Amino acid sequence: LPLVEKSLIARIRHQRGTGGGVIKGIGDDSAVLRIPPGHEALVTTDFSLEEIHFRREWHSPESVGHRCLTRGLSDIAAMGGEPIAAFLSLALPKALPQSWVNRFVKGLTALAKKFDVTLAGGDTAQSPDGILVDIIVLGSVPRGKAILRSGARPGDKIFVTGSLGASAFVLQQLMERKISPTDSSTQNLRLGLTRKIIDQHFFPRPRIEVGQFLRRKSLASSMIDLSDGLSTDLAHICEESGVGAQVRVDIIPKDSQVAMSPALHGGEDYELLFTARKPVPKRIAGVAVTEIGEVIRGRGVFRIDKKNRRVMRPEGWEHLRK
Amino acid sequence: LPLVEKSLIARIRHQRGTGGGVIKGIGDDSAVLRIPPGHEALVTTDFSLEEIHFRREWHSPESVGHRCLTRGLSDIAAMGGEPIAAFLSLALPKALPQSWVNRFVKGLTALAKKFDVTLAGGDTAQSPDGILVDIIVLGSVPRGKAILRSGARPGDKIFVTGSLGASAFVLQQLMERKISPTDSSTQNLRLGLTRKIIDQHFFPRPRIEVGQFLRRKSLASSMIDLSDGLSTDLAHICEESGVGAQVRVDIIPKDSQVAMSPALHGGEDYELLFTARKPVPKRIAGVAVTEIGEVIRGRGVFRIDKKNRRVMRPEGWEHLRK
Repeated sequence: LPLVEKSLIARIRHQRGTGGGVIKGIGDDSAVLRIPPGHEALVTTDFSLEEIHFRREWHSPESVGHRCLTRGLSDIAAMGGEPIAAFLSLALPKALPQSWVNRFVKGLTALAKKFDVTLAGGDTAQSPDGILVDIIVLGSVPRGKAILRSGARPGDKIFVTGSLGASAFVLQQLMERKISPTDSSTQNLRLGLTRKIIDQHFFPRPRIEVGQFLRRKSLASSMIDLSDGLSTDLAHICEESGVGAQVRVDIIPKDSQVAMSPALHGGEDYELLFTARKPVPKRIAGVAVTEIGEVIRGRGVFRIDKKNRRVMRPEGWEHLRK
Repeated sequence: LPLVEKSLIARIRHQRGTGGGVIKGIGDDSAVLRIPPGHEALVTTDFSLEEIHFRREWHSPESVGHRCLTRGLSDIAAMGGEPIAAFLSLALPKALPQSWVNRFVKGLTALAKKFDVTLAGGDTAQSPDGILVDIIVLGSVPRGKAILRSGARPGDKIFVTGSLGASAFVLQQLMERKISPTDSSTQNLRLGLTRKIIDQHFFPRPRIEVGQFLRRKSLASSMIDLSDGLSTDLAHICEESGVGAQVRVDIIPKDSQVAMSPALHGGEDYELLFTARKPVPKRIAGVAVTEIGEVIRGRGVFRIDKKNRRVMRPEGWEHLRK
């Protein structure tokens, strides 16, 4: 193994906690994990590829580590699940400085610790070009209680957590070079963007607690995380549930500095989008929850204002390159 | 999504079986899976990267699909486990023909079906360069029964399944251009290599049944799969068990056409290496099992012939590029 990889494995071995479900982590042919009795296993995998999902000139190593784990944790959140362990497949180009790897692992493990997730394995390889990350998260959920995309029914109300569009808005500013590339990724507030908006792009917070609350209270009839954008992800729920939806554009929660287009179509907010038939609290685990529309019969996602109806086409953000 | 990815997902959705443990496969934020009662979960992830683990000029798409899943299944075999589901993270370069993807999926799903493994999810992305595959396999094993690398004790005998070195030997021939690049990868017998030797490289067979037999009969005290090569993988067992080992080089099972060096140090045979205190059958599930040495006190892996002792250094094969 190249030196950088050996050091990485040593570092991860050191960082691994005594996480509840992990019987055997790094250092065998596979990890051995315990799923709580009466629970089912959840598995999700997500690529984070340099030049596709992040750029080294824009994203600090800590941010890349944080964001790639957020992608996986957010998928578990969207099922109402509890994350148990993460697995990191990491391919590195030859010339990558050791410090990049150290800082990447630091960003990843800092987030893992917040949710008591153990780094229990993975793979390392040399990359032919660029940094390649695949993150796998294993979680669990009580049997039959996973919140699927397919449970929305006509009449259900549609809700989102937090505020939308900030992540894609920051990306847009980076692409238009209105924000200069920065190493630490968080302190560049030159456009007058708030720290909150900047952080929503570089250090998004997966909504694990909200997802679990909705599952425990049996409140959500369907759920998805907002990784591709509201329009695209709502279309996923509609497709899997065989229903349509109408959304009140004027009440979509967003920061005033953020434009409407990223709030509608921008990805990587990692907020939760869900449907419910029962009343839902306006705040869950400290996060605002906003009703934005209603599930309807038939097909199609319609954008409505106070009077008119208009078609909202799925135009979700699909990574840096089309 | 690019067209090739949409078609891929449709293809995989179509191929997914009604596999036992899979409650919800492709089409939600994460897969939902059932681990049998009284069992623990096994998770393994393995990269297969173009130019690092395979070359398009040497390996047919079917072979790449087969080999990448073999890597994961073989890890489950080495724990004595039962595979349940596989997850495919696949990043493809823009210019890749659709037919390559179709044939890759065909090779992968053909092997998956043999072991009743469901393709239950994954991720697709555009690759910045080359084909990038990360395969994740979820399996299960009765609680506390996983066969670890750490259980070898002085006095245990050392065993291997099948015959060693063929995979690395074929690779060596390919590198020295003694075998011309071929599209279908299996019929080139120009060097007079047998079909069996050729297939051991292009379509290796994970030893799932052997691993399970050893676990059910409580025969193996430690086990690992031969992915890096006998010398390196035996060193892994010794390191995790805190023991040494001596191996009788003259009785290592190999085809007469295969040189000794790949049998000792060559990787990707995906045979099983294990230690045992009790007598072991000479054939398990149709596969030959050969005693090749003994676990000893202290440290180091020693190569012995009928009279002498010599140090066997770990010189295992580490992918196409160093």
